[in-house]
Amino acid sequence: MDQSGKENKMSKFVIIGGVAGGMSAATRLRRLMEDAEIIVFEKGPYVSFANCGLPYHLSGVIPEREALMVQTPEALWERFRINVKANHEVIKIHPLEKMVEVSHNGKIFQESYDELVLATGASAIFPPIPGIEQAQNIHTLKNIPDMDAILSRLNQNIKNVAVVGAGFIGIEVVENLRQRGIHVTLIEKAPHVLPNLDAEMSAFVQEELQKHAVDLHLSKAVVEIQNNGDLLVLDDGTQVPTDLTILSVGIRPNSQLAEQVGIRLELKNGIVVNENYATSEKHIYAVGDVAVTKQQISNDDALISLASPANRQGRQVADVLAGLKRMNRGSIGTAIVKVFNINAASTGLNERMARMKYENVGVVHVSGTDHATYYPDSEQMWIKLIFDKKTGKIYGAQAVGRSGVDKRIDVLATAIKGNLTVFDLPELELTYAPPFGTAKDVVNMVGYVAMNVVEGISENIQWHELAVELGRGKQLLDLRNEQEVRNDGQIKGAINIPLNQLRDRIGTLDSKQEYIVYCRSGLRSYIGERILKQNGFEVENLDGAFDLYKTIMKEEVEHVEKY
Amino acid sequence: MDQSGKENKMSKFVIIGGVAGGMSAATRLRRLMEDAEIIVFEKGPYVSFANCGLPYHLSGVIPEREALMVQTPEALWERFRINVKANHEVIKIHPLEKMVEVSHNGKIFQESYDELVLATGASAIFPPIPGIEQAQNIHTLKNIPDMDAILSRLNQNIKNVAVVGAGFIGIEVVENLRQRGIHVTLIEKAPHVLPNLDAEMSAFVQEELQKHAVDLHLSKAVVEIQNNGDLLVLDDGTQVPTDLTILSVGIRPNSQLAEQVGIRLELKNGIVVNENYATSEKHIYAVGDVAVTKQQISNDDALISLASPANRQGRQVADVLAGLKRMNRGSIGTAIVKVFNINAASTGLNERMARMKYENVGVVHVSGTDHATYYPDSEQMWIKLIFDKKTGKIYGAQAVGRSGVDKRIDVLATAIKGNLTVFDLPELELTYAPPFGTAKDVVNMVGYVAMNVVEGISENIQWHELAVELGRGKQLLDLRNEQEVRNDGQIKGAINIPLNQLRDRIGTLDSKQEYIVYCRSGLRSYIGERILKQNGFEVENLDGAFDLYKTIMKEEVEHVEKY
Repeated sequence: MDQSGKENKMSKFVIIGGVAGGMSAATRLRRLMEDAEIIVFEKGPYVSFANCGLPYHLSGVIPEREALMVQTPEALWERFRINVKANHEVIKIHPLEKMVEVSHNGKIFQESYDELVLATGASAIFPPIPGIEQAQNIHTLKNIPDMDAILSRLNQNIKNVAVVGAGFIGIEVVENLRQRGIHVTLIEKAPHVLPNLDAEMSAFVQEELQKHAVDLHLSKAVVEIQNNGDLLVLDDGTQVPTDLTILSVGIRPNSQLAEQVGIRLELKNGIVVNENYATSEKHIYAVGDVAVTKQQISNDDALISLASPANRQGRQVADVLAGLKRMNRGSIGTAIVKVFNINAASTGLNERMARMKYENVGVVHVSGTDHATYYPDSEQMWIKLIFDKKTGKIYGAQAVGRSGVDKRIDVLATAIKGNLTVFDLPELELTYAPPFGTAKDVVNMVGYVAMNVVEGISENIQWHELAVELGRGKQLLDLRNEQEVRNDGQIKGAINIPLNQLRDRIGTLDSKQEYIVYCRSGLRSYIGERILKQNGFEVENLDGAFDLYKTIMKEEVEHVEKY
Repeated sequence: MDQSGKENKMSKFVIIGGVAGGMSAATRLRRLMEDAEIIVFEKGPYVSFANCGLPYHLSGVIPEREALMVQTPEALWERFRINVKANHEVIKIHPLEKMVEVSHNGKIFQESYDELVLATGASAIFPPIPGIEQAQNIHTLKNIPDMDAILSRLNQNIKNVAVVGAGFIGIEVVENLRQRGIHVTLIEKAPHVLPNLDAEMSAFVQEELQKHAVDLHLSKAVVEIQNNGDLLVLDDGTQVPTDLTILSVGIRPNSQLAEQVGIRLELKNGIVVNENYATSEKHIYAVGDVAVTKQQISNDDALISLASPANRQGRQVADVLAGLKRMNRGSIGTAIVKVFNINAASTGLNERMARMKYENVGVVHVSGTDHATYYPDSEQMWIKLIFDKKTGKIYGAQAVGRSGVDKRIDVLATAIKGNLTVFDLPELELTYAPPFGTAKDVVNMVGYVAMNVVEGISENIQWHELAVELGRGKQLLDLRNEQEVRNDGQIKGAINIPLNQLRDRIGTLDSKQEYIVYCRSGLRSYIGERILKQNGFEVENLDGAFDLYKTIMKEEVEHVEKY
């Protein structure tokens, strides 16, 4: 190409797959190489459609089906001279001959290439559950024909739908079905919804689902499908009658073409690529959901199937093919989901993944508001930060709330990409005026709290550690005021001293006893921890405090008689 | 303090100023040093009030005056054992004796200190305009008594208010006065509102102000005040009748106490501090609006009067005083303002500042939407990025739009703090689901566009450069379709070839002519630029395209007869 020092030559590029990664590659290639021949083969009937919008057309929140069609082959030819062929399935690659075999309308033809890009994406997994073959009413939702098929059943006025799998897509499907007034049963194998998040954060989403009358089955798997799909049998014997079942239990890279010709696969059959997207076979590249990438934080191989990385990789492989220097740096995996009136988002590693891989994992939870509480309509959110307790390196973050969680996770995702540590978070200068934020944004606060942990100014324990620590003889000390204890109950076994009385009543505490303090949100208990520590006590702070604990450990909260 | 290795000793801290920096210092000191004596003297009647909320009480958007009172001296004593004394004015420092003189209710007393923190903030400038002394109806808005005074006049059913100064606070005041139905005249010395932003970005804010019937006088100064304040005379002779005038023309550090004792001042009399907030006088520290800090990007001395840096500095000086390692790294200055239905935000250096200080300043404007256009209620925004054309280093960013500009500027502010370059912006993995963003977020896009400039794939010119370039004989080439040209007009002197016809009609162009291409938003003109460049043409892209240009250069747009 002209600017990069590489000569223009008439190259011929064939791209297999016409959605995110494939179309990004094709259009960038054209902008860089005006003379190249560019052909895109798409197996399905639509190119460049908005797959993330599919769930929202089920409810009519996105009313127009056509709104999901981003591009047409005609428009792509007019503007980019890209030859986009829908309903064309590549059935074989011949690497030595640099040629692909393509099937279209029952006929097979050959197309040569100079460079071949595999952007074949991933398919929804259809697990081999006994009875699934006989069922006519079991669907997945990956593309427009899937959506059309589900909609045509929904329009038959059905009443009960089962959704299997409570990941991001499954949850979006549930929300949109409920908005149609359909009764929804949600079945998830993991002990909580949104398995990418940690249990205590997804607990808020579970509450929201239950508030909207979603019938939730956690830690349960479908083991049999009966009555031609009208009855699901779970592993605990539960029977779930259903008019329609939508499976959202994961995806699998569409790497069969690559596998046939011996291209190296790994990790659930994803295509192995180098940092320039080259596969093990010369002149063949792969991008998007079909390719193995690096989890950028852990540097582990990963399959990350998200639209943003796929688009970026598509563009980058075009740069590589045009002779520009470009490198896949990996992905951190940022995601968000709207669930009725709350939003849940995450970036990087969750606590489970971090603890599996690293020592000295620190965790803090901070609650704050999206904007100044004195300005109308402020909303509370929780942010969780996972980091290295020695260095302050950030491993990941999660947030749940009604407003502003996207912004905070975006800021934290940017911080991770910039290798910022917890010490840098209070330094962030974020937009502040009362309608938009607070003078100490919750992201700044989460940095302060994590710094206190790294510097040993505060020691915390997590909700899942409390039972063990109490078993070791530590005493829970509740620093909320009496009114709060009376109204909301307290954690079993706690004694109560309101924070403002702590200095005066400190003599009543046993200096040989170890304490765990808590309050409602964590602000007061930290102050109490500091008072006690400086008076010589061994004390830890229950991170996330009563508000978080009661969401995930309801049964450990008791009504208090004495008040 | 206990964890840091420094011994607890009974220190006595005196803090002058009880709002952002001062109160942050006091509370953090207590958490670190339980035994210290901490006294805060506040000249005014209120401590720790929400000064950023003041404009919103003028309209009743924040209905309760009490909502602005964040803390009381009583509550601070109960929880923190901080001795907060409102209506106490420190009138003199005696550094040798380590003592201050305090005036309260007409009596003067002395208070000793071990360490003294000056958090005296800044005062609104009251310029010496002839006639200002005689006027009874001229106010500033920095604190609660100011607000009370303005409100009591507004409640006298007045009709006309003049606001002098169209910075962030001035604009907020204007908005809230309009919401009361008051006629507002806004007078600004600079050629555009929001002088921190560049002209073409603030043009959107000006449009919004005019849409809401604000009477705008730009490039004009008040030179005389007549009729006891009922008439303002501007430097072009304009007479502005007014029932009440609110001045918002800047602030000045309250450094008089420091100046008296010879503490080193610079830059409009801000107090010079080292990176640990120590002034030139032993045992005296300064934080917040009264202190000179570093503009973190340029490393120039700066007065940055924003709540977030003040809070951070207050906390950090407490850390320093308690023996923790902490350092002022400077500020980049992020700010935002809501103006009726649009929002404008900025971070870092603007284009003017960057061009004054650096060579090779690159600028790109990108328009995008806050979330997927196929999901309801998406809104357009403009983002401007200012960067180094050689290295890609980011100098600053601005954004204007109805929704989501706070998020994008927060992400870019975080990128600047992480020393990310334009090459890192496409790598950012931001939360994406249709209600929250787009698969290629506008921040990713702004990175791609800037990369193209740094790598020489695209060359752009700015709106303010167009006249000169056309004067040099370049030809404007409009790549929009005929319908758009017919409806919206075109830039004077342009010839029109719709992008999709460019390849076919390229033979009609003169290969010796230099061209400047534009379209509506910049997407098509970039594609056209690439087509022309690869066909051997000298061509530049009008950055920001027609949409931006017509906002700031209305008079250069002409109706086209032939369509």
